[in-house]
This record gives sequence, structure tokens and C-alpha cells, in this order.
Amino acid sequence: MNLENTGRLTLPTDLDMINETIQLKELLGADALRDCDGTLMPETLLDQDAKIYATYYTTRKDNDWAMQNPEEIQQEYLISDRVTAKDTRLRIELMKGFHTQQLKVNTIDSPKRWWEVIDRTTGEVVPTDKWEYEEAAGEVVIETIPYHQYTVSFLAFLIWDPVHMYNFITNDWKDAPHQLTYDVRQPKTQAYVKEKLKKWCEENPKVDVVRFTTFFHQFTLTFDDQKREKFVEWFGYSASVSPYILEQFEKWAGYKFRPEFIVDQGYHNSIFRVPSKEFQDFIEFQQIEVSRLAKELVDIVHSYGKEAMMFLGDHWIGTEPFGKYFANIGLDAVVGSVGDGVTLRMISDIKGVKYTEGRLLPYFFPDVFTEGGDPIGEAQDNWMKARRAILRSPLDRIGYGGYLKLAINWPGFIDQIQKVVGEFRQIHANMQGTKAYTAPFKVAILNCWGNLRRWMANQVHHALWYREIYSYVGVIECLSGMPIDVEFITFDQVRQGLDPAIKVIINAGDAYTSWSGAQNWTDERVVCAIRRFVDQGGGFIGVGEPSACQYQGRFFQLSDVLGADRELGFSMSTDKYNELNSEHFILEDTPGEIDFGEGKSRIYAQGKNYQILNMDGKYSRLIVNSYGKGRSVYFSGLPYSPQNCRILLRAIYYAAHQEAEMKKYYVTNVDTELVVFEETGKIAVINNSKEPKMTVLYVNGQLRKQLYMAPMEMCWEDL
Amino acid sequence: MNLENTGRLTLPTDLDMINETIQLKELLGADALRDCDGTLMPETLLDQDAKIYATYYTTRKDNDWAMQNPEEIQQEYLISDRVTAKDTRLRIELMKGFHTQQLKVNTIDSPKRWWEVIDRTTGEVVPTDKWEYEEAAGEVVIETIPYHQYTVSFLAFLIWDPVHMYNFITNDWKDAPHQLTYDVRQPKTQAYVKEKLKKWCEENPKVDVVRFTTFFHQFTLTFDDQKREKFVEWFGYSASVSPYILEQFEKWAGYKFRPEFIVDQGYHNSIFRVPSKEFQDFIEFQQIEVSRLAKELVDIVHSYGKEAMMFLGDHWIGTEPFGKYFANIGLDAVVGSVGDGVTLRMISDIKGVKYTEGRLLPYFFPDVFTEGGDPIGEAQDNWMKARRAILRSPLDRIGYGGYLKLAINWPGFIDQIQKVVGEFRQIHANMQGTKAYTAPFKVAILNCWGNLRRWMANQVHHALWYREIYSYVGVIECLSGMPIDVEFITFDQVRQGLDPAIKVIINAGDAYTSWSGAQNWTDERVVCAIRRFVDQGGGFIGVGEPSACQYQGRFFQLSDVLGADRELGFSMSTDKYNELNSEHFILEDTPGEIDFGEGKSRIYAQGKNYQILNMDGKYSRLIVNSYGKGRSVYFSGLPYSPQNCRILLRAIYYAAHQEAEMKKYYVTNVDTELVVFEETGKIAVINNSKEPKMTVLYVNGQLRKQLYMAPMEMCWEDL
Repeated sequence: MNLENTGRLTLPTDLDMINETIQLKELLGADALRDCDGTLMPETLLDQDAKIYATYYTTRKDNDWAMQNPEEIQQEYLISDRVTAKDTRLRIELMKGFHTQQLKVNTIDSPKRWWEVIDRTTGEVVPTDKWEYEEAAGEVVIETIPYHQYTVSFLAFLIWDPVHMYNFITNDWKDAPHQLTYDVRQPKTQAYVKEKLKKWCEENPKVDVVRFTTFFHQFTLTFDDQKREKFVEWFGYSASVSPYILEQFEKWAGYKFRPEFIVDQGYHNSIFRVPSKEFQDFIEFQQIEVSRLAKELVDIVHSYGKEAMMFLGDHWIGTEPFGKYFANIGLDAVVGSVGDGVTLRMISDIKGVKYTEGRLLPYFFPDVFTEGGDPIGEAQDNWMKARRAILRSPLDRIGYGGYLKLAINWPGFIDQIQKVVGEFRQIHANMQGTKAYTAPFKVAILNCWGNLRRWMANQVHHALWYREIYSYVGVIECLSGMPIDVEFITFDQVRQGLDPAIKVIINAGDAYTSWSGAQNWTDERVVCAIRRFVDQGGGFIGVGEPSACQYQGRFFQLSDVLGADRELGFSMSTDKYNELNSEHFILEDTPGEIDFGEGKSRIYAQGKNYQILNMDGKYSRLIVNSYGKGRSVYFSGLPYSPQNCRILLRAIYYAAHQEAEMKKYYVTNVDTELVVFEETGKIAVINNSKEPKMTVLYVNGQLRKQLYMAPMEMCWEDL
Repeated sequence: MNLENTGRLTLPTDLDMINETIQLKELLGADALRDCDGTLMPETLLDQDAKIYATYYTTRKDNDWAMQNPEEIQQEYLISDRVTAKDTRLRIELMKGFHTQQLKVNTIDSPKRWWEVIDRTTGEVVPTDKWEYEEAAGEVVIETIPYHQYTVSFLAFLIWDPVHMYNFITNDWKDAPHQLTYDVRQPKTQAYVKEKLKKWCEENPKVDVVRFTTFFHQFTLTFDDQKREKFVEWFGYSASVSPYILEQFEKWAGYKFRPEFIVDQGYHNSIFRVPSKEFQDFIEFQQIEVSRLAKELVDIVHSYGKEAMMFLGDHWIGTEPFGKYFANIGLDAVVGSVGDGVTLRMISDIKGVKYTEGRLLPYFFPDVFTEGGDPIGEAQDNWMKARRAILRSPLDRIGYGGYLKLAINWPGFIDQIQKVVGEFRQIHANMQGTKAYTAPFKVAILNCWGNLRRWMANQVHHALWYREIYSYVGVIECLSGMPIDVEFITFDQVRQGLDPAIKVIINAGDAYTSWSGAQNWTDERVVCAIRRFVDQGGGFIGVGEPSACQYQGRFFQLSDVLGADRELGFSMSTDKYNELNSEHFILEDTPGEIDFGEGKSRIYAQGKNYQILNMDGKYSRLIVNSYGKGRSVYFSGLPYSPQNCRILLRAIYYAAHQEAEMKKYYVTNVDTELVVFEETGKIAVINNSKEPKMTVLYVNGQLRKQLYMAPMEMCWEDL
């Protein structure tokens, strides 16, 4: 088998695509075939010279079981509308605003034990003798204080699987029965599901890879009364609960559970919230239990000589791939969707599996493969972002999903895939499993989540663009393809002592979010540790509202390190004499305009050691500061672009006092990047733009040659 | 004397302007003459048929006295630079960053008694046995915790009067001796100053009006080591202190004084800060003492048959004209600078004096009367803003200041003044001391300052434009000329019970400032009172970040009343289905673009009873909401413009459920307004633009006539 032309590729198929699949498999050198949501694997293809993947669901597609065991249907913590009392008695209709086809109030488990009525005007819990649930009306009746606002946190059964409901609505299905859920964590269902998996393995001898989608707990996906999405949190744990689990949690944690740990004032522990200790405990507990039980299923799969693959999505709650317990599951592989460089690294950086696979975009769905759609353009953009990340941390395999027919019939699309697959194999051929050169120091992203949410910082939904976040996500998107070893660290790690290999710390996010750090910045241990780190020669890069927490006369608690603060109105009477001086190492490649994205406003420089590199009126957007032996760089925002990659790269080397090292391997044009494999003696140069570019290659600080690169080209040089 | 052509006007003069002054006085019908900073009153004019004003300074222009009594020189609380310790010992140079010609460390009074060293990393006071002041070095030496940050709050003598220093620097004077200050509150100086005033009155028999500039305490105006402004707070009390005063304060207040009450983390009690109880106490105490002592000076002036006039500026600290003690001073008049409608009302609304006088712009200074300058345009803009406010709350007099020569020699400028003076007298002739018609309800501006800072909300410096505030100041600038009785109320007034005449409450400002209200919004008494008020039919108008204080799942604590909240990142997983519907009473006159100024971003509508009138992408800028019997209106910002005046007027009538009443007296064109004097049967219609406008006049809901108005015209109709 010629590895340069074959392997590392998974293709989707369908019942009516047998010959096309075989032809395409040969053309592209695919070595695995898969079914997808909405497609089926043809019997005749099972004997092809290819691995066969089969999607597998543990928690649904068995309504009989669910109906026979209603108490083991999955549950979700919901919070009612916030209702303001206008008198001393208030009725709150629990299901108002929810879809009664998705969720049903749990009255099997005692409301007084598991629900919570909270006075949101005072934050106090209303004693259980001051409210009653009237089941007939579906309302909680509360003794209230007039003009206080109340919520009810309650348990509901998930009587329609959220993903099935989503597909049903999105595809406008009419007659498919709603798939109920069941909770594999509970004893009866657990035993049943294991037996069922064994049986399935027996009945499907030709399946090589069981692709779990995923294990037990769906991320939070709740619909409103008009069947629209009401709350969607890819990191959400609200649907991973049941009294059975919560009683175990209480024993494990040693304290009493409260619904508020999950409901969290109605924010449902959005990843942007600074996680409470109790929520962190719950995540820990769930990871332990989920990984333990998932291992049992994986063991079953292995006992039939099959591989177990996990899809990183849907019911992935508790399987955190960068958590402490993930490797225990014993999976063979993880597969996930590649939306950009960041989401690629979210897969390719996973340890504890034999291989990783990325499903590239576009998905072969009619929304893109249609008049006005641009599947080739999407494939190119997706690949340009993925490629630079793969060069740093390679996926072992790539694949596609959806309706093969659409891809085959789109003129030129298969050619584009062929290019992608070719380049992907070329990378593997040239790197030969070795690691690309990286800077002789580490960069740490500091936030409340650290490595548990590696490559997930500042994101709302998987690779989706949001106006509120793209100026922060840009930082990690840039890093995903940079010659930099990146750690994601928590404030506790700062308290306990930094890894000495870390030379630059980045803190990026909106004030008071988990990404910026909120109250952590009023902890003397945190600010002192970072001041000491920078004073002794470290680098600190702040983006947006770094170290922000209004306290003792400053908003940015590291204003001394950053040479910057943000005006909240309190210091408008203090004169600032901020002047621009854009002559700086950081901007040497980029004399023109800089895109700061949404860019926090009202940033001013302060102290004696700053230089302002970019201003917006009287305020600043890019500031460098020296602090003892160390340096800091402040950006008001940094969306992803090739130019911003270069600016961030320079900022990192500048902050690390390693400007000279930066030019060890270097290409001049900001639209190009290079990746060096010292062990194999290969250099990849990539053009990250859709225009031809000339760039000059430097090796060990010496001019090597000028390269005239085609649009999107990747070329290879010998070191 | 024909009152329509004479009187109500003060002109400046100068030694070389005798004949010109007389001619202009006749032409314009002036009845008062004044000297100014930098000009002198010619002896020969003292016998003119006009009142003679003389500026008078109580705290400077007597260096001999100051030098003989160094312990009674005025003092100011300063805060050193914030310095981060890198070891267990730190030296802080106190005067670093200050100008040693302006300020000198006070070592006469015990540093250990009056200074404070604070660990800004913990907020704790460093015990006095852990620091020493080394006078020779001018440094405080502190035992420190490494990487904690420290400040020293200390007392300094004001050895150069800030206003004199400002004039000296601005006018580039070379040889004028620096004027020292002295503290009239202290016993020796107090006796001396009183005697001096008596002597001056005796020596100046022809002066009719003693124009105090002002009494005892300069607002905070501190210069840096390069003689640039370092800190300027027109409302600042930092230079109104001395151990003598502070010991009195301790007795009065019954608790120990702390420098932090004044220094306030380095913010020096910026008016944007929520005032601490201690700072409020200090303001109260100073008002009591300043008004008592000022009365003694005013009594002296009266004893010589002269009038006492106060300039609202410079040393005005403690004379708060809307404070409880102001009327006790017994002044005859207040004069102040009119920058716009708001600053006009700041003068014209003052009670407890016989008359008020506004000094219109431009000031006759070379910066405007120069090539490229536009004094006529400035006079027109100033007058258009002033006029609409005068029609609501008239000044008794107007005047001008500066170098008369400049005004006389500028072609057409005197004609412009003549128009202004003519219109001003016309207003008085037609209103005859009666009050203009206002809506049959009051509107209250709610903030932490209330009436003490009437017409001062959200302002940094007197009438100056700041990017951070103009979208809020617009609200009161609109109101300054609207047919609305406006109250400025505090949160305590909300707690104690609202005036039943109030039908609409406005809360406008940035989160956590004194204008928005910060922690007041987590007080159940406040939110319940306002919810009840609106529920029972009241109106609430929020601008920017009203009721903002992150707590219990909401940023806007009145999100239920407003139907709106602001996205801080925590609720991005909650779907919003905000849709525009701009058909509304509020926008009936203004179908086009609306200027929201800086406009807070990320505002979304929520609840069930809202209507979004204006959006910016997926977020909203103008939302109305119904709440029980009441209504609310949310604006993301509202800078001043004639169109925004109309929008706010409509919003107020809408919020008050008085839409029909609005058309009692009405003009259709948004660039025009009308003012009705029911008692005299006169209607003024003004064109607030520099273009000709057609407008339709409605009286009692009936179309009266079409008016074709010249640019800036004011015309009168009979009721």
C-alpha cells in the first residue's frame, strides 16, 4: 500500500451510492467507510477493503425500554421564568416557555427534596413550607413578598432526545416517532444497555469501528414552546442529572446538593461563568463516573475485536478529553468536526487514544451544495485553517460526512478533496511522526478552566462566529498553527507555582468571565505570582479585559504590569497624556492598519514604562510595557487573520525577550508561515491566502531563498 | 427706562475701552459693567449710570500674609504613585509626579496622625509603626510584602493657587509672583480676611456688587511635574481639608477621620463614584461651615450697602447652590458661565438669591476671536441652547466677559449680541415673571446625588464634551428646555417614598457609577419601590446601563420593568428572538435614523411585553415595555439634538400614559419647539436649527396655523 496515495481517509456512503463509493474510494485512496445520520451502510460494501464504521447510540432509539422504565428516563434541571410577585401569593407555571413534547415535570421524585424556589431579589431560598406544587395546574404556589422576583428550579424528564428533536425539526420530519431518552447511569438501564451492545456486536460482525455518539449525557439543548432553541450550551451539565446520580454525588462530595449548583441563577453554568466550587466538584464527579461506565462499554466492544471510537459531541458530557479520567476509558479513537484550527487542535491534541480523526467541512448537506452555495470555497477556507494546525499537531485521519451524491455531482469538488487529501498525506510523509520545531519556551493561556477546556477558551458553540467572542477566539486560532507549545492553565496553577518552561502568559476575555478571571484577580497570591513572574523576566499578554476586577482604585489589577487600564468613568478627572509611537518590533512586518475586531474601548496607558503602538482617538488599542526584567503586551482585541497571527507571534517573542530566536526559521510575508521538522530535515511553507504571494525564507537567520507561491500553496524545502 | 430695550445686561470693560464701553452700553442698553481676569475697571466709568461689579478673591493675592502664616496655607490630600514592592522594603517618593511649585508636603502636622499608607493589593492600612517619612529624601519607607502595591495618602500645602497657576501657565506669564493660598477657615486668617474685606469695601465706595470668586475652597485642580493638569474635578473636595477642619469634622461626625475618605483609592471622590457615607458626611459638614462663614463675609458686604454676588466656580466647594445650606449665605446673586441649556439651568434654577446672571459664550478671548475662529457661530449655538432653557427657567440677567476690544472689532458680532439681548428681553417682557406651561406631572432623574447635583448628572467638566458622557448628558440637555418639571432624586428618596407628583423616573448612566446607582440596585427596598411605582401606572426610562449591577442572574436589576438586559457573556447560550417593530407613538415624528451616540452595545429585549423600536444587528437600542399598569422605555444612549429632544419628549409622555396631553400645545417639526405662558397668553415658537423651517402649531389639540420660520427664529403668538 503506497501510504502517500492511500489511507488516513474516511468517506461516507449510502444505499444508492455503491459503485460511486467504490470508485471514489479508489480515486482518493480511502481506507474507511461510514454511515451517517440519515444514510445507511450498504450490505455489499461491508466486504470492501476498508474499515467499516458504524454510529452507535447508547441512550435512545429504544422507546419500548424508555416507556417501560419511565423513572429511568433522563432528566434535566430547569428553571422557570422569573416572575415578579405583585402580592403575597404567586403562581408560577413551570413549563411556560418550554416545549411539553421535550420535557415533562418530574413528579416521581419529591419536589420538596429536589426543587428550589428562590427569591431572586434577595438571593434567599424560600423555605419548602412556603410553597406547594399543584400538579393539576402545573404551577408552584408561593408565599411571596410583593415585588420580589421568584424562580423555581425543578427536575424534568427528557421525553424527546434533544438531538433527535433537533434533526426532526431541522429536517421537517413528519411521522418519525419522538425518540425518548434513558439514563444509562441507572441500574436497570445500565444492565440493559450493556446486554444490548453485546448483542449488537454479535449481530454486526463486519463492523470494525463502533462510533459512539456519544455516551450518556447530552450537552444542554432545550427547546422553547415554539420548538425553537431556548438554551444551548455545548459544555452544559444541566441534562446530566437525576436524583439517583445526585445522591451519589452528595456521598462523594460530602455536602448537600442544591439545584442552584446546576441552575446557577438561570445561566446554567455557561462556560463564561466563573465555575463555582460545587459545579467544579460535579464535573469532577461526573467525569469519574462517566469514564468508569464508558470503559465498561468500550471493554465490551473490544471483547468483540472491534475498535471503539468516540464522537466528540452530542452526549459527550463527562468525557472531557483533556480531563484527568479520559484516558481511563480506553478508547481507540476520537473523531470530531473540524471547524477551524482551534477545533482541530481540540481533537488532535487529545492523548490516551490510538488515533484521532477530523471530519472536515463542508458536510455534504443540501444547505451548502445548492445554488448560491460555495462548497469548494468552504473546503478551501476550512483546509487553510486546518492545515496550519495539522502541521503543529496532526490528526491521524481525516474524513467527510453527509450525502456522497451531493459531493460527487458538484463540479470540481472531488478535485478539491483530492488536493486536501494529498496535502494531508504529504504532511505525514514529511513529518514522519516527529514534532515540528517550536519556540524554546511555552506559552500559557490563563483562565478559570485551564486544560480541562483546552482550545475551548472564549467559545460559545463549536467554531461558530459570535460578535462578542471573535476578537478573543482569534488568539487561540492564531496559536493553533503557531510554532508555540501552548498550555491552558488555571488560577490555581498560578497559586501553586508556574511550570518554569512557561515564559509567556496570556489572559484574554471580557471582565468577570471565566476567561478573564473575575475575583481571582483580587487574590494576592495570583497577582503577586504574576508580578513576580514578569518582574523576573516573564511575559504577559492581555487581550480585552485582562486581570479585570474593579478593586482598590484599578479595574485591571495588573495595570502596573500591563501599563494599561480601562476607564469606567471613575478616573475621567485624571489627565492622561497618551501619545502614539508605533515604531516597534511587534509591528515590523505590518506597517498598515490592524484589525482589533470588537476591541474593548476606553483603554488608556498608565505608569512610566509604556509605549503605545496603536490608538483610537485618545484611547489605545495596542500597548507594550516593561516591568522589571519582563514585558507585557496589551491588545484591545485580536481576531484571527494571517496578519494578526504574525503580530501575535511577534508579541509572544517580544514578551519572552526572544526576538532573535524568532528569526531562526522565518518567512517574511505575513500571509505565509513555515513549519520546520528538524528531525526529518523538512520545511513546509504555506500560503494562507487565496492570492499568489512572494515570501523570503530565512533559515538560522540566513536568507535562504525567495519563494513565489501559488494561492493556498504548500511547498516543501529541505532544511 | 424702557425695559424692552434696556437692562438685564452686564458688559466687560477695560482701561483702554472707555468710550467704546459707553457707546456699547448705550447701543445694547447695558446696566452693569464689570472687570474680569486680566482687565481693569477704568476710574472714569465708575460714575456711569450702571451698576459696577468688582471681582473679589478671599483666599489669595496677599503673599505677605501667607508667608507670615505658613501653617494656615491651604492644604490638599494627595495620593502618591502606586508603587509595587519587589522586596520587603519600599521607598515611595511622595512628590513624584506632582509639581513642587504648586504643592509642598505638610510636615507641620503629624504624618502618623494624618497620613495613611495602604496596601492596595489587600486594601489594608499599613500600621504606622511599619513606615517612616524621611523628610530629607521626601520619601516614605515602608515594610512591605513583596509584589504588593502601596500608596501613601498625605497632606500638602497649596503654595501656588491652582487658578492663578492655571492662568499663569495658560497665558505664559513670566514675572508675576506665584500667588500663595491661605485658609479662611482658620482663626487667624479668618479674622484677617474679614478686616481686609471691610477695608476694601471702605476703599471702593463706587463698587455696587462684590463678585466673590468664590469663597474658601478651590475645586481639586492639581498639576503634574511638567506643569500639566494632573487631576481636575470641578466637584472635588480634596483641597478643602486641613487638620484644623478635620478635627472639627471628627467632633461633628462622631467618628475618626481617615484620609481614605478623601483620597478614595486615588479617584478623589470623582462625582462618578458612588459617594461613601463618610464623603457625604464631609460634604454636609463643609456646606454647614462654609455657608456659615460665607454669610459673615456677605454680611460685611451688605453692611456697606453693596450687593454680594457669587461666581459659581473656582473656590465654590461647600457652597453647593442646591444644597440645604446655600440660602443661609444670604447672597444677592449668583453668576455663572452658560455653556448650554444644562449649565444655564444650573444657575437659573438656584433659589435663595435675588437674581441670577449667566455669562454667555463666547468669552471675548483671542482663542475664538482669531483667524479661523467663529465667534458669531459660537454665539448662535450657545444662544439656541440657552434660549430654550431660559424659556423654561429664566436667568434674570445675562452678560459677557473678556476683552471688549476683540468683540467690537469683529464684524457682525455686536449685531449678533444685539439679537440675543433683544430676544432675552422679549422673553421677559412676554412671560412677565410667570411660569411656562409644563406637563401635569413631574419627571425625576434618579441617581446617587439627587438634587445636590441638580443639572450636573453625568458631567465631567462644566459643559465640556466627552465621548464617554455625551450620550447621557443629552438627556438632561434635552430636559433643560422641555415643558417638564424635573426633579433630581436620590435612592434614599426612593426608599423613603416618592413624591406622588412624579410620574416618570429616569435612570441614565454607566454601570456602577453614581449616575446608574451600582449596589443600590441590589437593595430590595429600591427595586420593590420602583417596581410598585411602575406597576401602578408610573413610567421608567432607562438610558445606557440603568439599574445595572450583576446579581442573581441579571445585570439590569429592573430587567423585568425594562424588558431588557445587557449581555455580559453569561447568557450567550440563551437564545434571543428579538425582532424589530418600529411603529410606535415615540417615533411618529421621526421616521428616519436615530442618533444613539456611543450607545451601549449588547442590549437585548426579554420578557413577554416588549416592543423593539430600533436595533443594531441582533441587539437593540430602543425598547418599550409594559409592566402592570405602567410602561418603560430603554435607550442605549441619547445625545442632544432637536430630534432626540422630540423623541425623549414623546417617550416621557408615553411612559406617563399621557400621550393625549402631549398635543395640548404642540408644533410638528422636530426642529421647532414651543413654550406657552398661559397666564400672559403668549406662545413662543423657536426654531432650534440654522435652516428655515415650516412647522404647524397646535393649541389645545386644534391646528392653529402653519409657521414659516427663519433660521434660529423665535416668534410669538397669542394663546
